[in-house]
Amino acid sequence: MAPRRKKIYEGKAKVLYEGPEPGTLVQYFKDDATAFNAQKKATIEGKGVLNNRLSEYFMTGLTNIGVPNHFIRRLNMREQLIRQVEIVPLEVIVRNFAAGSISKRLGLDEGTPLPRPIVEYSYKNDALGDPLVPEEYIIAFGWANQQDLDDIVSLALRVNDFLSGVFYGVGIKLIDFKIEIGRVWDGDFMRLIVADEISPDSCRLWDIKTNQKLDKDVFRRDLGSLTDAYSEVARRLGVLPTNATNIKPTLIN
Amino acid sequence: MAPRRKKIYEGKAKVLYEGPEPGTLVQYFKDDATAFNAQKKATIEGKGVLNNRLSEYFMTGLTNIGVPNHFIRRLNMREQLIRQVEIVPLEVIVRNFAAGSISKRLGLDEGTPLPRPIVEYSYKNDALGDPLVPEEYIIAFGWANQQDLDDIVSLALRVNDFLSGVFYGVGIKLIDFKIEIGRVWDGDFMRLIVADEISPDSCRLWDIKTNQKLDKDVFRRDLGSLTDAYSEVARRLGVLPTNATNIKPTLIN
Ligand SMILES: Nc1ncnc2c1ncn2[C@@H]1O[C@H](COP(=O)(O)OP(=O)(O)OP(=O)(O)O)[C@@H](O)[C@H]1O
Ligand SMILES: Nc1ncnc2c1ncn2[C@@H]1O[C@H](COP(=O)(O)OP(=O)(O)OP(=O)(O)O)[C@@H](O)[C@H]1O
Ligand SMILES: [Mg+2]
Ligand SMILES: [Mg+2]
Repeated sequence: MAPRRKKIYEGKAKVLYEGPEPGTLVQYFKDDATAFNAQKKATIEGKGVLNNRLSEYFMTGLTNIGVPNHFIRRLNMREQLIRQVEIVPLEVIVRNFAAGSISKRLGLDEGTPLPRPIVEYSYKNDALGDPLVPEEYIIAFGWANQQDLDDIVSLALRVNDFLSGVFYGVGIKLIDFKIEIGRVWDGDFMRLIVADEISPDSCRLWDIKTNQKLDKDVFRRDLGSLTDAYSEVARRLGVLPTNATNIKPTLIN
Repeated sequence: MAPRRKKIYEGKAKVLYEGPEPGTLVQYFKDDATAFNAQKKATIEGKGVLNNRLSEYFMTGLTNIGVPNHFIRRLNMREQLIRQVEIVPLEVIVRNFAAGSISKRLGLDEGTPLPRPIVEYSYKNDALGDPLVPEEYIIAFGWANQQDLDDIVSLALRVNDFLSGVFYGVGIKLIDFKIEIGRVWDGDFMRLIVADEISPDSCRLWDIKTNQKLDKDVFRRDLGSLTDAYSEVARRLGVLPTNATNIKPTLIN
């Protein structure tokens, strides 16, 4: 903490600092939780540590199967080194079962299986509440072009297949998730890679047997301890080798 | 056992019986293990029970993510109901790391990461020892056409992403695997679906930390107890809820 590094951006859940080399950033995971476009807020001891670990775990798995992403390496309990990208101003959402906004919009019970995975976009703009946008808007306003969107859908569906497998293996149903995509340049050649984070903050995760929620909805809907839920996910995946005392703030950083 | 059902085919590891309805088959998993084109043989108590369960588990997971396959439902400890297909006479192999024949052919150490997942085919013909064949042969001899092969590659890569995830979640590296693909008709419309089995007989699985083999190589190379290895895979995936006494032959069927 109190780094001599230059702060680039402070968001609701993370802080970005200048990285040690050009083209890199340090991503610091805070304990802050927000929901409903930051109308609901809390500090949840240990969340940042868990999400730092879990995002490392999922990004590493994606790297293993050749899905390009921003993760370089974890630096400490709360920070990871990432490749700096130019964020495409979209939240890319993949849904396997109805929940949240699609349930409301279409009157579907939460947990209803969808006919196939649905990829949708919301425009990243807090002032507007991250509104759902059709592809037509995205292309018309130049946030991405058709080729970008084709590539984004391919990436998103590969991430979905992989994460569905990871969670299936440990008895969890992947209801939906959100990723962000960024542009990087290798010389003149632009590539799209997965950025931001993958964690229970950005996924909906239900226990396969009990439908118990193991994600940020625990916070959104006051369903109990968020760190208990996230720790359970981490425990099943073997991500936190030791017990929960590890995430006590005294030991952090 | 001793079914009144008509036997359709007896292979080295499985028997196919006529199913209860047209277009279905009963797939019976034997305890027989063979390697090196059946030059090495053994009976391994409990293998069939484990593979029946594991193939059910993986096929169900694939169904969940929308990858079409032959599995309908498990009938008992050793049998499952499957959709009858016309098998494409190819073994479709996906490799993430070098092992087995590609290691020999290209002089690569086993475990060497490949530049990207490699999909290859061998012609299913025991008399010829299932020889590796280029796409050119497949199309020339009419075993499949270019469109079929494009669809097969898509299926194979989706299966790879999903299975890589499943195994990553439980600390196992998916080195390679083999699937078979079959044709089904919905009226005039032909579709390709995953058939045969997905199990440690058809995958190479290494423990992520120790590189311990948890697959049929344990049998091929005399590395210990095959059922211990397969049980370990099943245990990690939560597939066998109770202990190994369940797979004792006295309890089978
Ligand atoms: N590799 C990266 N390079 C540059 N920016 C990134 C990268 N990964 C994520 N970001 C951006 O870093 C910020 C992370 O902060 P945080 O998630 O806390 O923001 P937020 O409060 O959710 O606001 P926002 O709506 O901007 O996401 C986000 O703006 C995200 O788009
Ligand atoms: N859904 C299905 N419909 C029809 N045949 C199937 C289906 N699934 C698998 N098969 C076939 O059933 C047989 C399974 O038996 P087994 O795997 O023991 O054969 P094998 O000894 O390996 O010989 P083969 O070289 O034919 O696979 C294989 O021939 C396989 O191609
Ligand atoms: Mg954010
Ligand atoms: Mg076979």
